[in-house]
Amino acid sequence: MTDVTVESSGPLLPPSGLQIPRFAGPETFARLPRLDQVDHAAVAILGVAFDSGVSYRPGARFGPSGIRAGSKLLRPYHPFLDVSPWEVHQVADAGDIGPNPFDLMAAVSEVEVAARGLLAKADRLITIGGDHTIALPLLRVMAERHGPIALVHFDAHLDTWDTYFGAPYTHGTPFRRAVEEGILDLDVSAHVGIRGPLYDRKDLVDDKALGFAIVSSMDVARRGVDEAIDRVRSRVGDRPVYVSIDIDVLDPAHAPGTGTPEPGGLTTRELQQILRGFSDVHIVGADVVEVAPAYDHAELTTIAAANTVYELMGLIALEAQADPTNEGDNA
Amino acid sequence: MTDVTVESSGPLLPPSGLQIPRFAGPETFARLPRLDQVDHAAVAILGVAFDSGVSYRPGARFGPSGIRAGSKLLRPYHPFLDVSPWEVHQVADAGDIGPNPFDLMAAVSEVEVAARGLLAKADRLITIGGDHTIALPLLRVMAERHGPIALVHFDAHLDTWDTYFGAPYTHGTPFRRAVEEGILDLDVSAHVGIRGPLYDRKDLVDDKALGFAIVSSMDVARRGVDEAIDRVRSRVGDRPVYVSIDIDVLDPAHAPGTGTPEPGGLTTRELQQILRGFSDVHIVGADVVEVAPAYDHAELTTIAAANTVYELMGLIALEAQADPTNEGDNA
Amino acid sequence: MTDVTVESSGPLLPPSGLQIPRFAGPETFARLPRLDQVDHAAVAILGVAFDSGVSYRPGARFGPSGIRAGSKLLRPYHPFLDVSPWEVHQVADAGDIGPNPFDLMAAVSEVEVAARGLLAKADRLITIGGDHTIALPLLRVMAERHGPIALVHFDAHLDTWDTYFGAPYTHGTPFRRAVEEGILDLDVSAHVGIRGPLYDRKDLVDDKALGFAIVSSMDVARRGVDEAIDRVRSRVGDRPVYVSIDIDVLDPAHAPGTGTPEPGGLTTRELQQILRGFSDVHIVGADVVEVAPAYDHAELTTIAAANTVYELMGLIALEAQADPTNEGDNA
Amino acid sequence: MTDVTVESSGPLLPPSGLQIPRFAGPETFARLPRLDQVDHAAVAILGVAFDSGVSYRPGARFGPSGIRAGSKLLRPYHPFLDVSPWEVHQVADAGDIGPNPFDLMAAVSEVEVAARGLLAKADRLITIGGDHTIALPLLRVMAERHGPIALVHFDAHLDTWDTYFGAPYTHGTPFRRAVEEGILDLDVSAHVGIRGPLYDRKDLVDDKALGFAIVSSMDVARRGVDEAIDRVRSRVGDRPVYVSIDIDVLDPAHAPGTGTPEPGGLTTRELQQILRGFSDVHIVGADVVEVAPAYDHAELTTIAAANTVYELMGLIALEAQADPTNEGDNA
Amino acid sequence: MTDVTVESSGPLLPPSGLQIPRFAGPETFARLPRLDQVDHAAVAILGVAFDSGVSYRPGARFGPSGIRAGSKLLRPYHPFLDVSPWEVHQVADAGDIGPNPFDLMAAVSEVEVAARGLLAKADRLITIGGDHTIALPLLRVMAERHGPIALVHFDAHLDTWDTYFGAPYTHGTPFRRAVEEGILDLDVSAHVGIRGPLYDRKDLVDDKALGFAIVSSMDVARRGVDEAIDRVRSRVGDRPVYVSIDIDVLDPAHAPGTGTPEPGGLTTRELQQILRGFSDVHIVGADVVEVAPAYDHAELTTIAAANTVYELMGLIALEAQADPTNEGDNA
Amino acid sequence: MTDVTVESSGPLLPPSGLQIPRFAGPETFARLPRLDQVDHAAVAILGVAFDSGVSYRPGARFGPSGIRAGSKLLRPYHPFLDVSPWEVHQVADAGDIGPNPFDLMAAVSEVEVAARGLLAKADRLITIGGDHTIALPLLRVMAERHGPIALVHFDAHLDTWDTYFGAPYTHGTPFRRAVEEGILDLDVSAHVGIRGPLYDRKDLVDDKALGFAIVSSMDVARRGVDEAIDRVRSRVGDRPVYVSIDIDVLDPAHAPGTGTPEPGGLTTRELQQILRGFSDVHIVGADVVEVAPAYDHAELTTIAAANTVYELMGLIALEAQADPTNEGDNA
Repeated sequence: MTDVTVESSGPLLPPSGLQIPRFAGPETFARLPRLDQVDHAAVAILGVAFDSGVSYRPGARFGPSGIRAGSKLLRPYHPFLDVSPWEVHQVADAGDIGPNPFDLMAAVSEVEVAARGLLAKADRLITIGGDHTIALPLLRVMAERHGPIALVHFDAHLDTWDTYFGAPYTHGTPFRRAVEEGILDLDVSAHVGIRGPLYDRKDLVDDKALGFAIVSSMDVARRGVDEAIDRVRSRVGDRPVYVSIDIDVLDPAHAPGTGTPEPGGLTTRELQQILRGFSDVHIVGADVVEVAPAYDHAELTTIAAANTVYELMGLIALEAQADPTNEGDNA
Repeated sequence: MTDVTVESSGPLLPPSGLQIPRFAGPETFARLPRLDQVDHAAVAILGVAFDSGVSYRPGARFGPSGIRAGSKLLRPYHPFLDVSPWEVHQVADAGDIGPNPFDLMAAVSEVEVAARGLLAKADRLITIGGDHTIALPLLRVMAERHGPIALVHFDAHLDTWDTYFGAPYTHGTPFRRAVEEGILDLDVSAHVGIRGPLYDRKDLVDDKALGFAIVSSMDVARRGVDEAIDRVRSRVGDRPVYVSIDIDVLDPAHAPGTGTPEPGGLTTRELQQILRGFSDVHIVGADVVEVAPAYDHAELTTIAAANTVYELMGLIALEAQADPTNEGDNA
Repeated sequence: MTDVTVESSGPLLPPSGLQIPRFAGPETFARLPRLDQVDHAAVAILGVAFDSGVSYRPGARFGPSGIRAGSKLLRPYHPFLDVSPWEVHQVADAGDIGPNPFDLMAAVSEVEVAARGLLAKADRLITIGGDHTIALPLLRVMAERHGPIALVHFDAHLDTWDTYFGAPYTHGTPFRRAVEEGILDLDVSAHVGIRGPLYDRKDLVDDKALGFAIVSSMDVARRGVDEAIDRVRSRVGDRPVYVSIDIDVLDPAHAPGTGTPEPGGLTTRELQQILRGFSDVHIVGADVVEVAPAYDHAELTTIAAANTVYELMGLIALEAQADPTNEGDNA
Repeated sequence: MTDVTVESSGPLLPPSGLQIPRFAGPETFARLPRLDQVDHAAVAILGVAFDSGVSYRPGARFGPSGIRAGSKLLRPYHPFLDVSPWEVHQVADAGDIGPNPFDLMAAVSEVEVAARGLLAKADRLITIGGDHTIALPLLRVMAERHGPIALVHFDAHLDTWDTYFGAPYTHGTPFRRAVEEGILDLDVSAHVGIRGPLYDRKDLVDDKALGFAIVSSMDVARRGVDEAIDRVRSRVGDRPVYVSIDIDVLDPAHAPGTGTPEPGGLTTRELQQILRGFSDVHIVGADVVEVAPAYDHAELTTIAAANTVYELMGLIALEAQADPTNEGDNA
Repeated sequence: MTDVTVESSGPLLPPSGLQIPRFAGPETFARLPRLDQVDHAAVAILGVAFDSGVSYRPGARFGPSGIRAGSKLLRPYHPFLDVSPWEVHQVADAGDIGPNPFDLMAAVSEVEVAARGLLAKADRLITIGGDHTIALPLLRVMAERHGPIALVHFDAHLDTWDTYFGAPYTHGTPFRRAVEEGILDLDVSAHVGIRGPLYDRKDLVDDKALGFAIVSSMDVARRGVDEAIDRVRSRVGDRPVYVSIDIDVLDPAHAPGTGTPEPGGLTTRELQQILRGFSDVHIVGADVVEVAPAYDHAELTTIAAANTVYELMGLIALEAQADPTNEGDNA
Repeated sequence: MTDVTVESSGPLLPPSGLQIPRFAGPETFARLPRLDQVDHAAVAILGVAFDSGVSYRPGARFGPSGIRAGSKLLRPYHPFLDVSPWEVHQVADAGDIGPNPFDLMAAVSEVEVAARGLLAKADRLITIGGDHTIALPLLRVMAERHGPIALVHFDAHLDTWDTYFGAPYTHGTPFRRAVEEGILDLDVSAHVGIRGPLYDRKDLVDDKALGFAIVSSMDVARRGVDEAIDRVRSRVGDRPVYVSIDIDVLDPAHAPGTGTPEPGGLTTRELQQILRGFSDVHIVGADVVEVAPAYDHAELTTIAAANTVYELMGLIALEAQADPTNEGDNA
């Protein structure tokens, strides 16, 4: 019935909200076409329904369907970036993978395999989680293509802890593992939005030793978003960047639907401002994770997450628009 | 990624919940295949995202996506009816239509056209609403194929009022319109679950004059489900029956997510008992309407609605299993 | 703007929901006229916004406005009792009193004074609470007019405890005080719906010594509503009866919005059945109390409470209809 | 019972919260007198219970009763503006109108007729919605009295789209219609708080061509509230101004209970700051719309909306206090 | 401050709710003493904060603290069983164990070790979960003491599936594992409350082959609670019985806060009736599992679960009261 | 089972979240030891389960258990203050007191007696409420030890009103009473975060006459947190300071779970910034009050409150670390 809008000369687009109401229609992200409806996509949305790596409130397994529900109000044109992210090139929804919920090692491996497979059909992935455990296999695949990669990590937490209960792969440990595996571009990566109590002063020492810079939520409050943007941009330069956004980088007032909320976070407006400052950053992949709809209200968190995905789409489209030959860097 | 399970010898089936977790995967009803993935379906689920005909709490426009979300726990085998509804014949999800939300006349017409079109691809429709206004165009299409049709109508309300604010097509009037249009098989139709205050004694007189019998919720409480089943079955006999289920037939404790809740309703178990009593009723179409997720909690209402759809699927499959030659009656 | 419907020959009525939508209009109970809009009322609704007597979850102070909001779907005709409660005689909303929240003794006295005053303008009061503390002053006023009165008390709890923290007037003690004050007609009163753990076996002994009979929720389950009706009716006979309904007589599934929920309660349908069995009981006053909207969902509890008030209105109207000369017994 | 406080020498006032608790009492806005209790009001609150013009989440039909519930904590003195808005002149609650929910054209006309009628009894209206469709008929009535009027429009969205599904009157189109009807003072009007994706770059071009300026939410974040105030004030000067506030101008964290939430909005404090900057703006009418209580939590949105109404009352009272002869400009 | 009530001659008791308000005080179950405050307990409550074995909605890891919060309204005397469960013998709260959330095998083992250790200090355990995975290690410990044990299993689901995703220990498989391990007394065990769709007809065949009887929720509806009681009692006779209660045996209206809700379940009153019918069953251990507070509302589910624990306490106390020498059977 | 971690050489600490999951374990604040487990504490957390002094939404009686539940994510090290508050000295949870809910005078006295008694076992108290009434008896005890004390009061409201309904002790009056009793150090105390409408201009005049300074929420918005910090610090100097934090100082978006929400408040980040600016303030006691969990969502408010307690713990630990000899000032 309701279906994608076919235009002969360009990408397959979502149906127009002016003609088919937004509360109807394809259940894909922003009602975009499914990946199997298009030959190839410049950007594919991948859902990873998984939360077996969480240490407190579970529920991010329902994140992908929640974020899709929260994406229905997105419209085609981004006025601030002055770009129509779905018209510049083909964007599509690749559906979900549901890794083994009872075996963390197997799950990490399944995500890796699935992401690698998808990159045959899509130049870039924006993954919607799911808990933060999944960033590790996604980074592995990125590093295969780009070498050690610059990470821009938005989060309340460092996620460079070592193990929980002896488990090396959890939502608190992906970036320590990534450093150990040599897949991060050390000395250029950064955490943004960090706040909240830690286990020990050593957490900070270790994190610094791993090569990360920290732009804390308090730094954003005190020094403003522009300095935050500058610090990150001056680090990553023109390197290939992976952006990993734990939705708990937002204040719980803006994103209650998450597993380990920390007061004192960014507003959604600050997050938008910072992301919009990355218009010349070379983003090769991204994720938005840790959305747990059971704790959400009125789709506050899922709408914020869907809009965050849209900002990422805008940035990627902007780069593609500026340099159409650049699309193929994952091919 | 996650996708339907292909089996060469039979219908296309949902992925197994034992292999792909139920919280991942296709966003279709019960993760069934989309109608466009199969040649033809014996039964198709159609979402009608529409609530412009409601008189109190709106929100049933989000009913179809809500019911799909509530359908993820359904499993393939119905132990009470001893049938696997998706294996007997092909069942598929036809997606949504989103009729014009600003023009009731146009919307009614759009539903009629869409339903008629779909019946080229599917033998029977189970429609998920959406408000009760949509039952009228669905009955029109049924009557085209079967002549005046027996209606078994589960609801707290009669829905045979005349007009609201001068509007002839609203969620409180479809069955009066249907009688006027000569598309109901008078003297065999029945309302089940009726309760709550009315505008006037005349409401009952009018309804009776239109030809309906009433099995009230209090009747079910006093005389039991078996008498309710007998009364309905003895009326409809072997005629073609359309089953229209307003979710507010359930008590608000069981279905808070609806627009005009009335205390004193059926339990979900009673509704299941009654429906299971219709194993030899010849059901040619059905709807489950008035699910308003904004008022739901923990998917209580959407899960109840999805399970009600499943009961209907089971009844239809049972008949098909008993007489496989009967499938084509809509062809 | 929206206002009561004026009809020269009879009572002032609510605006019709077929002409002015139910989500608009007067904020009175069921959009009935205010008491100050009519000369005199046969039945007046009085809100008592008070919860300083509660022992667990507070919030019943918001009960009156919650119940009014939950009353908007009520329609004029009660099909089961075959009566139009607002047309038989004038029914009106007397608004709220807000007794001193910081002084229980003063508050009890304020309720008594207010109720006595209102009975100059209204033959009968149906009071919406507020916590159960307020039943005591209401019973005092009843006893002034009718002598010791028969109490039919729907509740999960006995409410015949002695004191909490030395306080004699709380929501757990009104009926012991009433017995001590000699304002109850001993040996004819009854509790209905009792369940849940007690402090001591002595609670039951004391309660029996005070003269109450108990029809427990389990009795209703085991022996049916008809026996419950018979037991109450055979006790109260044709004496003047005060009906006091703690909404927690309903199961928490039906009435989550209350302060001391006990599992295993009545369904709203059972409560309706029992009340409808009192068609020849001489009801001189009633209350519906302990509705705490902060714990409600989707107006489940407030709609149940409003419908309970409507049942009481129906019973009173039925008696008035049968014997119009009887109206003046409070004058 | 609870009722307005009578003072011989001045306006009728709400009962004091120090004497009658705020959780009791009249259900009017801030417990103010009803319009029918006073001869004439300088400012009247009008509820418009209507949401048939919405394109996504419905529910603003319950906005008026929700905002009244959220207004109970308002107290008489505004310390920042140093004015007691209800003591300077008479303020009253005019109740609700409930326009035809099934006919947008009829509804728009009903609002226009009602508003025109009310202005015989009240100098100014502050309308509480209801969806934004109602701004058009309200502006028509304003223009009848003042000629083309300056609009200060707080919103996440432009609301200058053309049609949805062929419908010219919806919540996304009132200001385009108003421009076409010549009832807006072009080149002085402004949108404040705009953000979120659009359909097309042309949306901005069209809006500018219609004569609007835009102070986006990002502008407020980057340049501060004072520049926002200056831009608006320098445009409107001393012209008669209509202030139309879509509650979704606030960030969803501050106003979840609305139909088309967009992340990245104003805080309530920013909205208060901007409004307080309009102390010398000549406000002749205002509305606060798009409050959908079904999506609210803990009255977050309705309290924010009620406080926004209070800011508007304060501004109007300030002007009246400064120049008492100015009251009659609507007479 | 608030603390247990010391009485020299008997068990340590909770503080009285008539003296210390129930909303204050020890956070233990029903404000009972902690196990470390007493020498030895006849019955200990053990929390197992674990949900890594769930297949759909997670969150039962918060079950123990949720059930404790829901237990505060419990009072000392059970009027139906005529017993004061905490006075007959010492009952105490043993606190929580938090098994490894990232390793199912390790977690199962940790529960087993902990339970075995606790039985040195307590004669019987009532365990509050946590997901149903934990029943397996609890049954192992029971079987060590009593030999193969009779299981009375309340649940919507059979929980005798084989594996999910290759995992043998999950919340859907404990009783198949238990049969395989020879720790169940075959041919006397039973499931009560079963309903909902299955994977295959074979699920029923397998379950029967494992030796279970089924009393379905529909059986309870059709044949009544007494027949359900009789069927179970006639099976278990005087054997040692372990009662395992998945809260989803209750209808979702009564227990929304659970992970795999199935419509058509028992009411809390039916569950109470059935349990009270087991007054002469020899219960040696029990659990109440699958309470997921994130999906609960107004403590509906946690209060139901806490009351279910109380019923079990009552049954055990009744047996102890009848035969005080029997206490030591776990010693 | 789960229990405090014993380290021979230092304070008793909570179990590590890296070893025992945070969703299990002791129900104390942050899983700290109970006061009865340690000899003496430098800082004790005291819950006061009381809300009989509230004027609008009740429910703060459940504040202590709510805040404890919201404290589970706290970790041992405060990176901004660079201190581990539980390692510098012993911190413990003293449990709850539940003052008489039916007698405000008695309750105030009970809090005073309990606090005085606890100070024999603990050098400083951080009290978690409970409504603001309890600040008065806590200040009395402080003044006994330190003489008239400097109050730093975070709140939306002044709380220096005189009486409600004749009651001198309510949540709106503690600081007027404190001034009258001579227990505040006049001319150095301050309110922070004040906003919202007042009863009268006189409220401000009276408050100033009592000796308070006001740093309004609007001041924080306009002039920044640093000026707010400076104004408070320059007033209090090195005097002993009591910090009383009404959680409604936060914007309702950040703290919906409270009784008298006022839009336009501080963000949690601003509150953290201001508190962190008090690193050299000599804090001798503190409270965090007015948390009403029934109005909370996803623990937004309780987590904010628990983190606020943690900031206070950090400041006190910082002072102790700098001058270990200072601990004994309460001894």
